[in-house]
Amino acid sequence: MTNDRPVILVTNDDGVISNGIRALVEVAKEFGDVVVVAPDSPQSGMGHAITIHDMLRLERVNIFEDVAAYQCSGTPVDCVKIAISQILKRKPDLCLSGINHGSNSSINVIYSGTMSAAMEASIDGIKAIGFSLLDYSAEADFEGSKHYVRIITQQILANGLPSGCLLNVNIPKLPLSEIKGMKICRQAMAHWEEDYDGRVDPTGRKYYWLTGEFVNEDNGEDTDVWALENGYVSIVPVQYDLTHQHGLRFLNKYWDV
Amino acid sequence: MTNDRPVILVTNDDGVISNGIRALVEVAKEFGDVVVVAPDSPQSGMGHAITIHDMLRLERVNIFEDVAAYQCSGTPVDCVKIAISQILKRKPDLCLSGINHGSNSSINVIYSGTMSAAMEASIDGIKAIGFSLLDYSAEADFEGSKHYVRIITQQILANGLPSGCLLNVNIPKLPLSEIKGMKICRQAMAHWEEDYDGRVDPTGRKYYWLTGEFVNEDNGEDTDVWALENGYVSIVPVQYDLTHQHGLRFLNKYWDV
Repeated sequence: MTNDRPVILVTNDDGVISNGIRALVEVAKEFGDVVVVAPDSPQSGMGHAITIHDMLRLERVNIFEDVAAYQCSGTPVDCVKIAISQILKRKPDLCLSGINHGSNSSINVIYSGTMSAAMEASIDGIKAIGFSLLDYSAEADFEGSKHYVRIITQQILANGLPSGCLLNVNIPKLPLSEIKGMKICRQAMAHWEEDYDGRVDPTGRKYYWLTGEFVNEDNGEDTDVWALENGYVSIVPVQYDLTHQHGLRFLNKYWDV
Repeated sequence: MTNDRPVILVTNDDGVISNGIRALVEVAKEFGDVVVVAPDSPQSGMGHAITIHDMLRLERVNIFEDVAAYQCSGTPVDCVKIAISQILKRKPDLCLSGINHGSNSSINVIYSGTMSAAMEASIDGIKAIGFSLLDYSAEADFEGSKHYVRIITQQILANGLPSGCLLNVNIPKLPLSEIKGMKICRQAMAHWEEDYDGRVDPTGRKYYWLTGEFVNEDNGEDTDVWALENGYVSIVPVQYDLTHQHGLRFLNKYWDV
C-alpha cells in the first residue's frame, strides 16, 4: 500500500462470495487500496451483534483479483472490528458495506448487518456508507448500482460528512436509464407486523419461522421509502447517538425524578 | 388476565434463568399481569439481531411463581416479536427488559440485546424500558436496582413517554443507601478500542477472542457515564429514528446530488 491513495475497507452481510460485494469491490478499486473483510456465511438480520460468547476464525481467501480478502466467522460488526485491529496497517479512510441484496430503507436500518458494519466503522471515526439494492435475488443486476456507488464515493471523498454521521444508500430495482437520480431523505417511520410460520418437526416438536409484513405509516415525501417508490436512489444520513432530544425535554417537564 | 391491570412483557438478554430477570419480574408483578419471554441461553452483545436463516423453538417453562414464562431459542428481539405474535392475547402496555448484568450506558446501547429488545417493543408502539446494573457478576445484588425499577415503572405508567422514545436505565453498583438519586441524561460519546486475544487450537489453527477497552471521549456532565461515575442512576431517552438531522443539512449544502 502507498500512502497517497485512500485505504478502503469493504465488507457486507451477505458473505464474502456474494455478487453484491464483488460489484462494490470493482468500484472501490477505482478510488483506493481496497481490503475486503467479510463474513464467511450469510449474516443478514444480524443488526449490531458482536461475538462475545464464542471465538472467531479469520482466513485469507483468494477471491478478488489484486485485492486482499479475508473471511471471518463472525458478524458484520465483528468483521469491521477485526479488520481494524488485526489486518489493516492503519485506520482506513473509508468503509463501504454491501452492496446488500435487498432493501435496508426505513426501519430495516436497525436490523441490517450491512448498515451495522458501516455504523461500527463510523463509531471508530471512519467515513462509512452502506449500499443496498432492492433485489433479493442472488443473481441481481448491479450495473445501475455501480454507477451510483461511484458518484457517492466521489462525493464522500471530496466533501466528507459531519462527525457521528454515516450514510444509508438504497437503490431501486430499475435499469440505470430509468433511475431518476438521487434524493437526500429522512428515515421513513415504519415497522414490521411480524408473523410466524409454525411447523412440526419429525419428532412432533413445534418450531417457528419468522415471517412478516412491512407496514409504512409515513406519508412524507421526504422519506427514503417515498424516494425509492418514485424511482430515486435514497441517501439517508444516519447517527448512532440515540439520545431522543424531545424525550429529554419531556422527561424533565413531566416526570418526577 | 383481567382488562384493568396493565399487561407487562418482561424479557432480557442474559437468559430466562438469570437473577436479573427474576428481580425484574418481582417488581413488575406489583404493577400488572406479567408474561416472561426470554432467551434460553445468554444473548449478550446480540444487538438488534433477528433470526431469519434458522427456525426458532419456543417452550413454556415453570420458573416463576404465578407468572407465565417462555424460553425462546432466538435473540432478545426474536423474543419480543414472538411474544407479541404468538403468546400475548393483546399488545402489552409495557415492556421491561433486564435487569442486565453489566452496563449498557453510552455506546453500549448499540450492542446490547437488552436495549434492542426494549427498542423492538417501542417500534411496535409499546412503552419500553431497558434496565442494567453495573455488575457483571451472576450473583450481583439487585435490591437497590429493584427500588429504582419500581420508581421508574410508576413514572412511565403515570406520565408516559413521547412516541418513538424508550428508556435506557443504568444503575451504579452501590448499596441503595449510597445511590444519590436519578439523572436524566444524554448518551455519552464513547467507543471501544477493540483488541483480540489470538490463540492456536490443538490442530494448529489460529482463533480469536474479542477483547477491548471502553474509551470515553466525552467530558460532559449531562451524560450517562458522568451520572453513573457520580453515584446516580442514569436515564437516557432513546430513539430508533436514526436520521442525522445535521447530516441532512450538511448533505443538502455541500454535496452535489
